[in-house]
Amino acid sequence: MDKPILGTNVLTQVGILVHDVEKAAQDYADFFGVEKPPIFQTGTLEEAQTRYMGEPTEARCKQAFFHVGPNVDIELIEPDHNPSTWRRDLDEKGEGFHHIAFVIDGMKAMNVKLEELGMPLLQKGEYPGGRYAYHDANHNLKLILELLENDKK
Amino acid sequence: MDKPILGTNVLTQVGILVHDVEKAAQDYADFFGVEKPPIFQTGTLEEAQTRYMGEPTEARCKQAFFHVGPNVDIELIEPDHNPSTWRRDLDEKGEGFHHIAFVIDGMKAMNVKLEELGMPLLQKGEYPGGRYAYHDANHNLKLILELLENDKK
Repeated sequence: MDKPILGTNVLTQVGILVHDVEKAAQDYADFFGVEKPPIFQTGTLEEAQTRYMGEPTEARCKQAFFHVGPNVDIELIEPDHNPSTWRRDLDEKGEGFHHIAFVIDGMKAMNVKLEELGMPLLQKGEYPGGRYAYHDANHNLKLILELLENDKK
Repeated sequence: MDKPILGTNVLTQVGILVHDVEKAAQDYADFFGVEKPPIFQTGTLEEAQTRYMGEPTEARCKQAFFHVGPNVDIELIEPDHNPSTWRRDLDEKGEGFHHIAFVIDGMKAMNVKLEELGMPLLQKGEYPGGRYAYHDANHNLKLILELLENDKK
């Protein structure tokens, strides 16, 4: 057996696109029997340095998280109307599944490795304490893969 | 805070529809650095007593499982051409995400409860040692929910 390409096989997130994160977060909270979690907004272009298909984009999203196991969250995502992988998939496919995520080390090297393996970089950005990247893994994994890298404390 | 409707919030499975489970299982195995897992086939109509939209169906699928954490598997699903939620979604939406699953107790009562909450039963069936049911939770959770009940040993 070889090493995992990402250095991990531990799923950390299932991302779900929604039109209205306030309503969806309440519906999930009711379903899971928990209080409605806080809604976060991703950073501005200046803060997040968001790139979609290689170009800067003003795109931001609102997010809500639900723990569904010791290592895994469901992430609800309401994108704004600027260009992003979130907006495109919501427009083209409607509400529902967007990505699965794994926590990795060494983002830039991993971006290069996945691109070489035929999983092109779709979007990337910074968040407080780390950064993310979405890669198109439809040809092999039949989904979008998100990498999350958290700075060492 | 109320109790979780399912009695649990621990995600156990992310289901992915594929056209060719042999190829997809090899691609996932390569990605995760593991050996290609065995491919299972769900039971015949007589064995599984499969019902789709309330009617008996000959539908079966081939499955492969990958551990992506202590509690969670990715399940790859290649349906046959008989009527099923798998076949419909693969035909209508193509390869990719199909459901998330939770392990519950008391299948029949849970089926009734979810239907009363506006999540209609789509499909159900038996497997060795247990049974499953898919409910349409698109109106609130934006996805199909699978319930798994395993017989007490």
